[in-house]
Parts: sequence; C-alpha cells; structure tokens
Amino acid sequence: MEKLGEIGEHEAIRRLTAKLGVHADLCVGVGDDCAVCELPGTGTDQVFTTDPVIEGIHFQPAENPERIGNKAAGRVLSDIAAMGAHPQWLLVNVVAPPEQDFQTLEKIYVGMTALCERFGATIIGGDLAQGPCLELHVFGTGVLPSGTALLRSGARPGDFIFVTGPLGCSIEGRHLDFTPRVEEGIFLRETGLVNAMMDISDGLATDLRHILKQSGVGALLEAERIPKAGTLEQALHDGEDFELLFTTSPEDAEDLRVKWLEKYGIELPMIGKTTDEMETLKLKRDGNIQILEAKAFEHFSNQTQGGMQ
Amino acid sequence: MEKLGEIGEHEAIRRLTAKLGVHADLCVGVGDDCAVCELPGTGTDQVFTTDPVIEGIHFQPAENPERIGNKAAGRVLSDIAAMGAHPQWLLVNVVAPPEQDFQTLEKIYVGMTALCERFGATIIGGDLAQGPCLELHVFGTGVLPSGTALLRSGARPGDFIFVTGPLGCSIEGRHLDFTPRVEEGIFLRETGLVNAMMDISDGLATDLRHILKQSGVGALLEAERIPKAGTLEQALHDGEDFELLFTTSPEDAEDLRVKWLEKYGIELPMIGKTTDEMETLKLKRDGNIQILEAKAFEHFSNQTQGGMQ
Repeated sequence: MEKLGEIGEHEAIRRLTAKLGVHADLCVGVGDDCAVCELPGTGTDQVFTTDPVIEGIHFQPAENPERIGNKAAGRVLSDIAAMGAHPQWLLVNVVAPPEQDFQTLEKIYVGMTALCERFGATIIGGDLAQGPCLELHVFGTGVLPSGTALLRSGARPGDFIFVTGPLGCSIEGRHLDFTPRVEEGIFLRETGLVNAMMDISDGLATDLRHILKQSGVGALLEAERIPKAGTLEQALHDGEDFELLFTTSPEDAEDLRVKWLEKYGIELPMIGKTTDEMETLKLKRDGNIQILEAKAFEHFSNQTQGGMQ
Repeated sequence: MEKLGEIGEHEAIRRLTAKLGVHADLCVGVGDDCAVCELPGTGTDQVFTTDPVIEGIHFQPAENPERIGNKAAGRVLSDIAAMGAHPQWLLVNVVAPPEQDFQTLEKIYVGMTALCERFGATIIGGDLAQGPCLELHVFGTGVLPSGTALLRSGARPGDFIFVTGPLGCSIEGRHLDFTPRVEEGIFLRETGLVNAMMDISDGLATDLRHILKQSGVGALLEAERIPKAGTLEQALHDGEDFELLFTTSPEDAEDLRVKWLEKYGIELPMIGKTTDEMETLKLKRDGNIQILEAKAFEHFSNQTQGGMQ
C-alpha cells in the first residue's frame, strides 16, 4: 500500500490527472495556474481554477476571519491574475464542525466579498457542509481574449525574468492580507511583451522551476537583484508571496520596463535570465554561481520545514 | 456566540449569501441547483455548481472508491441536469491526510472520469491538500440556450408534478452509484413543456418545498402515485435519490407524457399537483389529506435522524 505522504503533492497530482479526458475546446489543462478553455464564437477564452484554504494548514484557528476570507478569495484571484485574465465568477464550499462560531463565517464572507468587489469578481454560489475543521474551497473563473493567456510554457532561452514585488517573510502576515496582482496581470498581458507568467505561491525557487520545466529552459538568478522583504533565503523559499513571476524577450525588456515605470511609477525588478540549460536553476551570489535546489513546502512531503502554506 | 449547529445549514447559507454582489450577466444566483450566467454574444447561458463529498458524512471510509468517485462527480452532474444543461467542465479539490492510501484516490478518479466521459464532461483541474479526512470538492459548469434554464421558481398553481424514477432507500447503495439524469434533463428542457425543475437530494418532501417556496405555490401529493423503492415514508424523506422533480402546465401534461413514453418506453410518474395554497405541502393517502412536514437531513441540524447525506 502506497501512502499519499510517501508520494508527495506534485507527483500525486501528476499521477491522478495523467488519464483525464481531452476536449476540443480545452486549450490548457492541468499544470498551469488555471485551465484555459475556448468560448466558441466569442473571441474569448475562459480560465478556471480552484484553491483550498484549510484550518491548521493555511491559517491558524485564532486568525482574524476577514483575513482568512481575503486569503481564500485572493489565492484564486491570484491564479486568474497569473493568466492575465479578468476575474469573473467565484463559488465557495465551506466545511465546518457544528460548534463553528457563525460570526466567524460571516466575517470570512465579508473578507471574500470585499476583495471580489475590488477586482470585479462576484460570488455566485457554493455549499456548506459538516466536517472536522474549517475549510474554504474557492472555485473561480476569468475571461481574456482568445489565445492570449500567459502560460508557464512560453519562456525562451535568454528571456529576462521579472517579479512584480518583494519576496519572502509572507508568514509575518502578507500570506493572509496580500493583494492579488489582478491589475498588473491584465496590464502585463495587454502589453503583448510577456512570454511566460505564473504567481509565486510555493516560493521563487520552486515556482520558477515550473516555468523552466514547462518551457524547456534553465535560469540564472542574480541574488542582489531579487527584491527582498527579508533575507535572500526567505525570498527564495518562503512562498505565499502572490507576486507575479514572468519573462520577456531581451529585445522587449526595455520597452516593458518603460511601460511599467509609466504605469506604476516604480522600477520593474529584473532578477535574472533564462538559459538553454534545460531545467537547471542557478543563483549568482557574490560573484559565485551555484545550483539552487528546491526547498519549498509541499503538502504531504516529509521533507517539509513546517510553516504555513 | 451563535454556533453553526444552532442555526442549521439552510438558514446559515441564507445569511451568508444575503450580501453577495450582483452582476449584469448573473441571471440566477444562490438558491437554485446551479447559478446561471449569460455568456454575452453567444446565445447561450452557463451554469455553475459545486458539491462536497466528505468521509463519514457522505460516504463511509471502507466504501468502494470508484463508487465514491461516481457520487462526487454525479452530485454535480445531477445539479447541472436539474437545469436542463449540457455538462461541460469539472474541477476537483481533494483533501486527505498523509496516511491516505494512494490507490484509493486513483480509483476515485477512475469513478469520476468514467461518469464524466459518459455525459460529455471533462475534468480540467483542481488541487490536492492536506487535511484531517478524505474530502472531494467538485466544481462543475454546463451550457444551454439563453434563458432556457429550468428553475425552481417556474411552477404555477395547478401544475402537474412529475418525477423521473422511484424514490427512497438510496442508502442501500443508490446514493453512491446512481446515474445523474443528464439526458433526461436535456430532453425535458428541449420539450419546452416544463415550468420548474430540480433534482432530489434531500428527499421529495423537503425538495418539493423549495419549488413551492420559490414559485409561491403549494402542492398536493398523492401517496399511491409516488413511485417507491421502499415504503412511502422512505420515498418522501430518505433523499439522495438524484431523480428529477418537475412541473408542467395541465394543458401540456398529456403532450409531455406521450413524448416521454415515445422516448423512454415507460410511463412518466405524475405524483400530484401544485395548488394556490402558498408553501403548503399536503399528502393524500387512503382518501385522507394531511399536511406534510419536512423531515430530511440537514447539515448541523440537531433534529436530524442520522443517515448518510
């Protein structure tokens, strides 16, 4: 008997989804921030994602409920942002024990609704069921012009790598009250200058690896260029930053930098470049180049260094 | 402090969703089997639903995993069927403890995928997270021509009430390996003869009450006309039948009966009529008419008579 804890989250997902069906309107299935499906006859695509937020795993029981709501809706909005899509509809499954304080649930809804309103999303349904602890399962959709979704697979060797903001130390609070980069995601897509994009949930070092794998490229990060909320180690591995990570061709980088500066009044942090060393992630630090190993939280993984995810 | 167990599932949902946002494309929000949203410019509407399936609540740990998968996908497909829609996309959040046997999860996916393939649905994403017990949260979408979704609110006084099959005793197995009435739902919508429709998950006596409330009508059921898998009591209250419950105008009833007979080769069971006695549900049995009280499973309700839901 093989246990889930021995297999780990990512391998388990890979195996469970290996035999799923296909469909002519399904453009991108499992493996990106969202699935992408064509909406025939509309010139638009629809994106779909879902994220769980579980007591004791993603938040502690004593946490401020509005912040829990912000995280539950925010994780899904961040996935939609990572495709460059406009958020649309959300549905929420709530699981809770009978002794659950009802006011806490009401405040969670206040947190979710406030974030949705800010980004043009609407909660249209869901369910409420009995279970051993408080959980929120949020399902979300978004829309964008056909064929324009920014995927993890679009990077090319030599691309410049960017992030939308500082990384690390999200455990100090930002993992709950972060702002999903919805506006930035749409802006970046509309520039037409971005090759690949995703949001950072598991940590820069882990998530960049998804882009490398799916694009068939490597990367060299420059330690001093990475915007940090704490130490370099934290910026690389903490996760739950919910900033956008994306690449652009070298010839478009200056154009993108200028457009970003005009729009947001700040410099866009360029943190390294992709390489042709397939799936190899390197870090340049104090003049030395080293191979960077993955070290992020993975559900069920025994190697995990604790921490919230 | 007010506890969820004191408020009950339906009242809690009502309160939590009372302040949700609105949107011009949102045709039907919380309160029907699915939410219904317009897909502008396509002549079609899209329906959205979500259902949890939780160990110890909706199935027992030792249960055959393919049947658990059938139930998880089937509940969502049944909601889509209840609108008369064509199933489209499904996403699945899996929650499990690290010691979860992985083969069980694989078999659950086999069960879900088999049912999806049968009804033209495709699983396109989801997530896997750590939690105290096995749970499946399935999100689903469907499509149908604009403005044709069959709602709970469409019944009129004097309508004939029908069900698609026998009710009761689903706990003996059918609550896991039932067939969602997707084909029947689409067929019924296409006849153009149905005024209101829903699926039976909480039991005939409870679910019919939703149609009565939302349509502003009452009903008189005839005990001997109700198709029963066991006793009358079981047919009225067991729930998890996942048959479709619907109404039609008296002048269309014969037409619908003939069309159903031609299509399926069996008589369509007419079980009673709606009345103008707002929200009053009555049962005629052995010549006597009595008021029928609700008595179904409700999550968190202390009045619950146990049983699986």
